[in-house]
Amino acid sequence: MTEISSLGEFGLIRRLTENIKTVNDSTLKGVGDDAAVLQYADKQTLVTTDLLLEGIHFDLTYMPLKHLGYKAAVVNFSDIYAMNGRPRQITVSIGISKRFSVEDLEAFYEGLALACEIYGVDIVGGDTSASITGLCISITCIGESEKNRTVYRSGAKNTDLICVSGDLGAAYMGLQLLEREKAVFQGETDFQPDFAGHEYLLERQLKPEARKDIIKLLNDNDILPTAMIDVSDGLSSELLHICNESGVGCRIYEDRIPIDYQTAAMAEQFNMNLTTAALNGGEDYELLFTVPISQHENVEALEGVKIIGYICESTLGACLIARDGTEIPLAAQGWNSLK
Amino acid sequence: MTEISSLGEFGLIRRLTENIKTVNDSTLKGVGDDAAVLQYADKQTLVTTDLLLEGIHFDLTYMPLKHLGYKAAVVNFSDIYAMNGRPRQITVSIGISKRFSVEDLEAFYEGLALACEIYGVDIVGGDTSASITGLCISITCIGESEKNRTVYRSGAKNTDLICVSGDLGAAYMGLQLLEREKAVFQGETDFQPDFAGHEYLLERQLKPEARKDIIKLLNDNDILPTAMIDVSDGLSSELLHICNESGVGCRIYEDRIPIDYQTAAMAEQFNMNLTTAALNGGEDYELLFTVPISQHENVEALEGVKIIGYICESTLGACLIARDGTEIPLAAQGWNSLK
Repeated sequence: MTEISSLGEFGLIRRLTENIKTVNDSTLKGVGDDAAVLQYADKQTLVTTDLLLEGIHFDLTYMPLKHLGYKAAVVNFSDIYAMNGRPRQITVSIGISKRFSVEDLEAFYEGLALACEIYGVDIVGGDTSASITGLCISITCIGESEKNRTVYRSGAKNTDLICVSGDLGAAYMGLQLLEREKAVFQGETDFQPDFAGHEYLLERQLKPEARKDIIKLLNDNDILPTAMIDVSDGLSSELLHICNESGVGCRIYEDRIPIDYQTAAMAEQFNMNLTTAALNGGEDYELLFTVPISQHENVEALEGVKIIGYICESTLGACLIARDGTEIPLAAQGWNSLK
Repeated sequence: MTEISSLGEFGLIRRLTENIKTVNDSTLKGVGDDAAVLQYADKQTLVTTDLLLEGIHFDLTYMPLKHLGYKAAVVNFSDIYAMNGRPRQITVSIGISKRFSVEDLEAFYEGLALACEIYGVDIVGGDTSASITGLCISITCIGESEKNRTVYRSGAKNTDLICVSGDLGAAYMGLQLLEREKAVFQGETDFQPDFAGHEYLLERQLKPEARKDIIKLLNDNDILPTAMIDVSDGLSSELLHICNESGVGCRIYEDRIPIDYQTAAMAEQFNMNLTTAALNGGEDYELLFTVPISQHENVEALEGVKIIGYICESTLGACLIARDGTEIPLAAQGWNSLK
């Protein structure tokens, strides 16, 4: 184990960044100057940023640093895809306390680098700092989109269909499972966590993917969503964002919300309401989007995409239609860690 | 005083961002979607980022939140100017703990907004999060530069002149002064800090400016530096960055380093070596740059710019020539908070 202080700031930065190669034409200069230099020419430039704080967004008890690096990058890529864009560069700032070793940070950077390799993204800069408290990670992602093909939250129209990729609630159930095993583990010395049959839930929580494939699928099928957002805070919050920004209402059907078998089984074990988990769980990083009703057949034919409802006039509000036909207004959650 | 929890995440973000207007043509969409949308056309895009952590980079005992917001923005602008660019957009991520009120955050945003107004920069996005530890601020700045006029650290050539704007060491002496008054204050209830005659030092520490004016001056006089960097870690470190990236050595003269009268007086009071403060103090946010020797007269005529030495071959190393003529090798500092 190498202590960070043995390298110093500049030595540490060199060690972490020396193997970084850039692959995108738009990256003219990456790490190593006052700023990265990019060239986007006739494309639009997209910028998104995420702050991840220890104890709030991740728990190092069960989150390996390599996975954390991977996830920290991917959640930013997801925001770029949600604009119908392609992520191209990230900057990575980390605040680290003494308890971390150089090898810990290398593991974190390995995760980052792996995500960047898979998604075709360059690491072009950042800031490394000491922290007197926990681990602090701030990633900014820059991407590109074609003019006139950038998709906002604000374009949903009355009668549009509401679609979602993949399935929902699994990352949240994965978190519940990890928290349970952590609680059981407290104080035990010879502990084997019980994760059998729940691998999918853990993967969704610890190693999420951004839906690059869905963006490609939509483009290949010449479908341009009218509005799009990624599901980071939960389906309910994200739908309300689209409705508010577009000035519309919506109806989604409880029985159409895509849920994986493992998610359902785990919810039953925990005696939790499955729909609540899917609506408010968050961290799914699926794409939620709307398309004109004329695209009904095209969208229905897409593998991995499900139509879950429709956009209506704003006066009708945003509601879930439950299995018994009752309408339940959707509520935003957001974080409440400050309460 | 309004508790943050009374607004919730989305309410807080709305409150902090509702008055934000954008002024740059390159900002197509600011706050309010998954990513900001920019359009840089035929310019190069510059990206820089800084992480500021409570207890490491600032001390709220003497740093008012409005000043902190101002400084957090300006230090990023400084990096963009150091590429011979112009800052255009920033994203702002903050991690906040319960002890902050909505009014505290509004003060922070006021400072940010003031800096953005003065420098012509748009706030286009960010992330707001709870923090279980201290205040955590991450700002990314995006700027633009003309193709072929972006200035890197790597372009310094043998015989080039080394120039620096303004004066050095004042921000560091301001910090020493604030720390002294804080120490005196501990435990006293009826305390009046003694800052008379040191206003310049406090201003340099608490409300630094980025040298937009120097970039304009250089452009107006048709001077394109061969290499440039901003002085954030101290003259010594920054010179070594230029030398390393350019593959050259340097000589700077101790008696040419520009130092303000207040800085010198304070150093004497503290019994500190003045040159050390100027070389290693940091946070000056002045511009350090090199120009071809053919520009000697042009640069000498510039107000607020001083020639402090010259670039030599790398085999000669990087040295300070002291008042008595001895050569002292320059040493990099960087942070050592992890030691």
